[in-house]
Amino acid sequence: MTETDRPLLPPDGAVAVIFISLRTDADDEGYARAAGAMERLAGAQPGYLGLDSARGGDGFGITVSYWADEASARAWRANAEHGAVREMGRERWYRGYRLIVTQVLRGYDWGALV
Amino acid sequence: MTETDRPLLPPDGAVAVIFISLRTDADDEGYARAAGAMERLAGAQPGYLGLDSARGGDGFGITVSYWADEASARAWRANAEHGAVREMGRERWYRGYRLIVTQVLRGYDWGALV
Repeated sequence: MTETDRPLLPPDGAVAVIFISLRTDADDEGYARAAGAMERLAGAQPGYLGLDSARGGDGFGITVSYWADEASARAWRANAEHGAVREMGRERWYRGYRLIVTQVLRGYDWGALV
Repeated sequence: MTETDRPLLPPDGAVAVIFISLRTDADDEGYARAAGAMERLAGAQPGYLGLDSARGGDGFGITVSYWADEASARAWRANAEHGAVREMGRERWYRGYRLIVTQVLRGYDWGALV
């Protein structure tokens, strides 16, 4: 993500999908292109509230996407283009991943994240 | 974290605390020392289930800690030593942060994260 499009604090009751992954060494360019395309596609989905993402030099990364409710998070999972890219991810870009779907209880901000 | 102490998949109903932060350029050594000390201290708390953490070269990072329930997550927040280190973090190590407390609805693993 760019630092200029940071999501707002997700409201209580929103859904936060935590995606923890370990990259292979393969095809950084294809991965970056797919990640950008998926962020744009997610951004066009009803209920999408944004995402935060960080990955270290060791290839271990965490992405959290925020959704207005369970229905919008499930609709994104059911998106066909997203499904095709997930399949590519398992074949090519990820050694493994963990997905944890959560509901926001509360949150707050301190200082500046940009 | 080291890759050898990955947490188990948190059970449904567990609490996942998402900590999103932007580091200053200051005092990497003190920060790393405090982070290690806090991980050990958290590990000694009842209800602690582990953490995942990733930070990119731009200083933007995400840490997710897992707790058995709300009570154990709140007890960690109330820990005095943890509070003192949080204060140091605001003075020295972080430009800003966002904290989002969530409850796990469901999760799954694919492949290997080590």
